[in-house]
Amino acid sequence: MREVFHQSLEELQSGLVEIAELVATAMEKATTAFGTSDVTLAEEVIDADSVIDERALALDELAIEILARQQPVARDLRIVVMSLRVSASLERMGDIAEHVAQLTRMRFPERAIPKGLKSTFTRMGELDVALARDLAELLRTEDLDLAERIRNADDDIDELHIAVFEKVLSDSWQGEASATVDATLASRYHERFADHAVSVAKKVVYLATGDWAADPPA
Amino acid sequence: MREVFHQSLEELQSGLVEIAELVATAMEKATTAFGTSDVTLAEEVIDADSVIDERALALDELAIEILARQQPVARDLRIVVMSLRVSASLERMGDIAEHVAQLTRMRFPERAIPKGLKSTFTRMGELDVALARDLAELLRTEDLDLAERIRNADDDIDELHIAVFEKVLSDSWQGEASATVDATLASRYHERFADHAVSVAKKVVYLATGDWAADPPA
Repeated sequence: MREVFHQSLEELQSGLVEIAELVATAMEKATTAFGTSDVTLAEEVIDADSVIDERALALDELAIEILARQQPVARDLRIVVMSLRVSASLERMGDIAEHVAQLTRMRFPERAIPKGLKSTFTRMGELDVALARDLAELLRTEDLDLAERIRNADDDIDELHIAVFEKVLSDSWQGEASATVDATLASRYHERFADHAVSVAKKVVYLATGDWAADPPA
Repeated sequence: MREVFHQSLEELQSGLVEIAELVATAMEKATTAFGTSDVTLAEEVIDADSVIDERALALDELAIEILARQQPVARDLRIVVMSLRVSASLERMGDIAEHVAQLTRMRFPERAIPKGLKSTFTRMGELDVALARDLAELLRTEDLDLAERIRNADDDIDELHIAVFEKVLSDSWQGEASATVDATLASRYHERFADHAVSVAKKVVYLATGDWAADPPA
């Protein structure tokens, strides 16, 4: 019985790692699609999002089943609660990758990536992907250095987010309204993606350290 | 012991209702501030957001304590799990009201509300406030008709969200880039606020009906 219980807990943790990896791949493809106006790749990301949604849902069901049947305590309980809170953020990160892909599809055959911001968005995408991969690794290993790296990447993304607005609101900006809308949305998506990762990382830190109180809700 | 337990559960539910009411008030003030460029009111909303954050955090701690000490089952367990998932969405809705207030403050003494979109944003704000009040009432009563009303209001907000983009991307749009950015962000905030409300409503429906499986992660 205890063995079945611990198998379930391991399943929960490995399930979160898998979803984080799917999310990283989704953002990687979405970034490439956005940068190269590759509508086929964008559609692949859009189609694949339902897999992330289903995985998150299945994991929540497993978490609830563990709570109901096993009535875990202490660290075991914290793992289950962490999973219930983290799965929603991971699922949301998948949605955001899908939104980046949808921007690409919406503008096709035009380029979604606004002129003069190509390198900025490429960099934001790369940072988001790296941060999602670090998140998967953090969920697997609870290596808290990774949480620090995620926070730093989030700071870099926030700076790029501000740079996008400075560009768009500068006198030199010649983009049409559609380019302004796309830049605003794409930048906001990347920034939110990183925020969710930081929020997940915090929950893993508090799982490892046992300090829930300092954990701001996502 | 059982009595203490049921008091805790009631505290959890009434806590969610209170947060939903705080969120509704925050969005009401943010909408007024946005519409009238009232920077004092905007700052009131920004300052008050920490109260919502603290309430959500305290509620999560209570939920975890109930899980650890009482090991609830059946409907009691569903209430606790619902609370853990819903608090994050409510807290996020509070953040979004704060973002609307921040837009107001950022543009002050200019108007944040872009020309030609005043009535649209006033309507979006009103719908969001009504929907947050319905959400508080739904959490209090589990009256499922309210969930239906929330879904309908969300549809109306989605239509207005599309109308904003149509306006901004039309040939008649004369707004500067800053107006385009503001319209894009404000519209997106209102739309996300409603999405979160629908997500919470779904969780309450599944609390009432017992069907978790159909509940997509927020």
